[in-house]
Amino acid sequence: MKIAFIGLGRMGAGMAANLLKAGHAVTVFNRSRDKAADLLRAGALAAADPAAAADGAEAAITMLADDAATEAVAFGPRGLLAGLAPGAAHVAMGTISVALSERLAEAHEAAGQGYAAAPVFGRPDAAAAAKLFIVAAGAAPLLGTLEPLFAAMGQRMFVMGATPSTANLVKLSGNFLLAATIEALAEAFALVRKAGVDPEAYLDLLTNSLFTAPVHRTYGGLIAARRYEPAGFAAPLGLKDIRLALAAADREGVPMPLASLLRDHLMTVVAQGGGGRDWSALGDLAARNAGMDAEG
Amino acid sequence: MKIAFIGLGRMGAGMAANLLKAGHAVTVFNRSRDKAADLLRAGALAAADPAAAADGAEAAITMLADDAATEAVAFGPRGLLAGLAPGAAHVAMGTISVALSERLAEAHEAAGQGYAAAPVFGRPDAAAAAKLFIVAAGAAPLLGTLEPLFAAMGQRMFVMGATPSTANLVKLSGNFLLAATIEALAEAFALVRKAGVDPEAYLDLLTNSLFTAPVHRTYGGLIAARRYEPAGFAAPLGLKDIRLALAAADREGVPMPLASLLRDHLMTVVAQGGGGRDWSALGDLAARNAGMDAEG
Amino acid sequence: MKIAFIGLGRMGAGMAANLLKAGHAVTVFNRSRDKAADLLRAGALAAADPAAAADGAEAAITMLADDAATEAVAFGPRGLLAGLAPGAAHVAMGTISVALSERLAEAHEAAGQGYAAAPVFGRPDAAAAAKLFIVAAGAAPLLGTLEPLFAAMGQRMFVMGATPSTANLVKLSGNFLLAATIEALAEAFALVRKAGVDPEAYLDLLTNSLFTAPVHRTYGGLIAARRYEPAGFAAPLGLKDIRLALAAADREGVPMPLASLLRDHLMTVVAQGGGGRDWSALGDLAARNAGMDAEG
Amino acid sequence: MKIAFIGLGRMGAGMAANLLKAGHAVTVFNRSRDKAADLLRAGALAAADPAAAADGAEAAITMLADDAATEAVAFGPRGLLAGLAPGAAHVAMGTISVALSERLAEAHEAAGQGYAAAPVFGRPDAAAAAKLFIVAAGAAPLLGTLEPLFAAMGQRMFVMGATPSTANLVKLSGNFLLAATIEALAEAFALVRKAGVDPEAYLDLLTNSLFTAPVHRTYGGLIAARRYEPAGFAAPLGLKDIRLALAAADREGVPMPLASLLRDHLMTVVAQGGGGRDWSALGDLAARNAGMDAEG
Repeated sequence: MKIAFIGLGRMGAGMAANLLKAGHAVTVFNRSRDKAADLLRAGALAAADPAAAADGAEAAITMLADDAATEAVAFGPRGLLAGLAPGAAHVAMGTISVALSERLAEAHEAAGQGYAAAPVFGRPDAAAAAKLFIVAAGAAPLLGTLEPLFAAMGQRMFVMGATPSTANLVKLSGNFLLAATIEALAEAFALVRKAGVDPEAYLDLLTNSLFTAPVHRTYGGLIAARRYEPAGFAAPLGLKDIRLALAAADREGVPMPLASLLRDHLMTVVAQGGGGRDWSALGDLAARNAGMDAEG
Repeated sequence: MKIAFIGLGRMGAGMAANLLKAGHAVTVFNRSRDKAADLLRAGALAAADPAAAADGAEAAITMLADDAATEAVAFGPRGLLAGLAPGAAHVAMGTISVALSERLAEAHEAAGQGYAAAPVFGRPDAAAAAKLFIVAAGAAPLLGTLEPLFAAMGQRMFVMGATPSTANLVKLSGNFLLAATIEALAEAFALVRKAGVDPEAYLDLLTNSLFTAPVHRTYGGLIAARRYEPAGFAAPLGLKDIRLALAAADREGVPMPLASLLRDHLMTVVAQGGGGRDWSALGDLAARNAGMDAEG
Repeated sequence: MKIAFIGLGRMGAGMAANLLKAGHAVTVFNRSRDKAADLLRAGALAAADPAAAADGAEAAITMLADDAATEAVAFGPRGLLAGLAPGAAHVAMGTISVALSERLAEAHEAAGQGYAAAPVFGRPDAAAAAKLFIVAAGAAPLLGTLEPLFAAMGQRMFVMGATPSTANLVKLSGNFLLAATIEALAEAFALVRKAGVDPEAYLDLLTNSLFTAPVHRTYGGLIAARRYEPAGFAAPLGLKDIRLALAAADREGVPMPLASLLRDHLMTVVAQGGGGRDWSALGDLAARNAGMDAEG
Repeated sequence: MKIAFIGLGRMGAGMAANLLKAGHAVTVFNRSRDKAADLLRAGALAAADPAAAADGAEAAITMLADDAATEAVAFGPRGLLAGLAPGAAHVAMGTISVALSERLAEAHEAAGQGYAAAPVFGRPDAAAAAKLFIVAAGAAPLLGTLEPLFAAMGQRMFVMGATPSTANLVKLSGNFLLAATIEALAEAFALVRKAGVDPEAYLDLLTNSLFTAPVHRTYGGLIAARRYEPAGFAAPLGLKDIRLALAAADREGVPMPLASLLRDHLMTVVAQGGGGRDWSALGDLAARNAGMDAEG
């Protein structure tokens, strides 16, 4: 397929490379041009703006940092709404708000274009290895058309229905579950460490009995080692996603007190200078609230 | 070994049976005598009280419902402190408080007896199948002596050090992590269900991407199906354990705001008539707080 | 002074009447025209739209229900920005967001117009009796000019500095303090009532010892009597204001866990069908969470 | 009346002095003898132990720091149960748990002695000035007999019924309301200060509009001035009382999420070295969680 790919950050670069490997024709656009170099060597074409990238494409994928960037690429003067041909589709794969996804759905429909949301679970290494989990929602025929693309980028696609923004809601709920796991581990480790238990022995117990998911190994390991930098997923990004989850819950009228707690704690991490730390620095906050110092 | 086994509830019956199977000589005591029938047929002896069971035993295992029952069996007039020979040991395998475990350690030491704490993770089926995870703490030589017993009852033993009550703290922290997982799933399911997502599709996504631990499958499944009865682990028992975790955290000076939230929500479940429901009924509370009815 | 007054709800009608009484020339605009009848009889003029009301006025006061209404009146096609003469000022007295107040400040400055924020504390009876507390912020000369207007509507003006949106932040923080007081009373009454204490005796104790503020008498009385309807200030409005307080705190990077708790509880009140109840229905939620029924 | 007075701390000394002034015969006992000097000069007699103090007294008042001290004085070998004559009464005026108050009621009844609980609101200056608010519960005839004593020590007595422990529950709920007010002010001041509002101007607004109770003036003033030492009521004592309130609520089955939040925050204050600070240091915690330093 002929594809436009917009957003070549740590996630997008790997995803675009996998599309190329699978034989698709990929035209890329990124605000910082230097990020495209490797892809161009691998056969991608470069475009000067989103509309140019979308010109002639069957699908334009966005993988951008936040709502503002996605909004600019879609609605901006040389954006996707202007550039996509009728019948071509925008596939939003970044983590964006439910509200923006709804606006995109309306705008593309009004323009005679298709739209699907397909946010992903997985970190940059999973993106590079085509091991992403893809949460997709949109019109069934469109999702059918996109399936080869998802297969090239991920290990499995989960379809969440015909309303695109549903996939965004589900993705946000997943990041909430990740943060909730981190907070629970943060408090548990603070307790056992202050009581004198060896953190590594405790981690060994957890991850070899009932808490065997990747999320337990990854974040349990970071908290046991108190290794909060460099950030795999920085606290401000985690805070942003919890805010979006709460915004979605607010629209639905669903109180999520644990999400509120996560928001408040991540705000504290960031306010106290932890903007460059991984969101697992919730473990450090729990330790300091128990009177243990950073070396604790 | 010659063993006394006290407490033949849903967990203890299977554990005692596995000790018999492994060739140990087991004398049992249970307040309700009828629970011992199967074990007696399998070769166990019955004693009239804990002291009689402990008479001549190298180790006396308690697997009782709570602090009060364990305290009575240990400190009561015909209890273990009175019945165990010098050099013999009490092995407390139930979920008891850190404070009681400390009292037991002191009392048994003063009586010239050994003491280890070895609470377990696993439900009755795991107890029957000798698949428990055993969290043990106590003097190293004693744990060495007990290892064959633990091997007969569990799939793995995790040693948490020489202070017995440490194992109780770790066990309580584990139940906290279980309840935290339930609450997180409860809020996430409330959100996606109110937004119209199919709960089974959502469960399939979670448990086949990042949330693959047994705890996710078990409790995610119950919440997706809204099947809160019969109780695998009843809400009042969960509440009791969160209370004990908070009491331990209080003694250590460790704030655990997520544990506080769990306590408050489990209290609400019980106060609103859910005393007979599984602690995963936190899922029902989250749904009702979002205005969804029981059938929602 | 020649004044435009826009928004003749339960608060605005009394405020505009007091301006007339003080001898000011008042031109009113309200979306529902019938609300102006009494004021017209008292000497006010009616305008067809906000711009017409602002035509020739030295100051245009808005007292509208929310951000959306205020935004429409200010930025709309026949709005205040279009209608106010250079040098004339917009005085926003409704409870609006910090963000909207900042946008208004910028827009009016760009248009060569003045802008002050002057939200109020007080209920409709205080508005009618000219007993409002007015929290004002804006350029000192402008506030000096407006002082006679505030004196006609309120019992006291508190100046919060030169940045208008500061007054909005302070007003929102005040509504947070009100809601926090309600929640504290709600939980305390649930406790003592379930323990069998007579609510009226308890209220008598509180309001005659340490808790003697109007807020204690008003909300303690409603909760003691379990009289949540008719709403003096409806739960959805309280929820809106707590949301705005949290939004302001988010911008400043200030975690407010008690505000989060209030948001979640007010959402529950509304989600469970309490949209028509007073925000003191937090008292009913606390009682039901303790297993007491509505008649409890 | 002939009275025994036990516990001559900052509160008790003033209360005993006022009983002497009112013409009662007072025999005092305090663990540290030097605290009695002033009272002896004023006409009190000294006893060697609680039983000796109670010998011949119609009523024995305890005003002790906590449950442990009160328990020792009542149940100890030379305690009140041993020393009070049949028909004489123990009046517990300290802040003790509901559970201990129930045990005292049972024990004194079994001994043919009377028992009333009469905890107080007010700080040492109010105790000295006979301005305490006294919350009393017990058998009506006993309270009638005690009324002159209460009149000598306080400005008003509030009767909470015939079950003594009810007064303790009500007193604990009052301390919860105080702490809740402090937390609300703490968060509000953190918000407005970080936004650049002058704390004194903000305090002036609050305490002259809707928040006019003594609790607002006292704690608002301390937080505005960031004056957390010396402690009027130290954080560990506040934490103890919130724990007792939560314990009482737990027994009744009443979730109090705001009390849980207060407990966690006070634990953090103490764990981070604030054991010598006033419980209004919640204001400092809110500021630090917002990234403002101690000088912020």
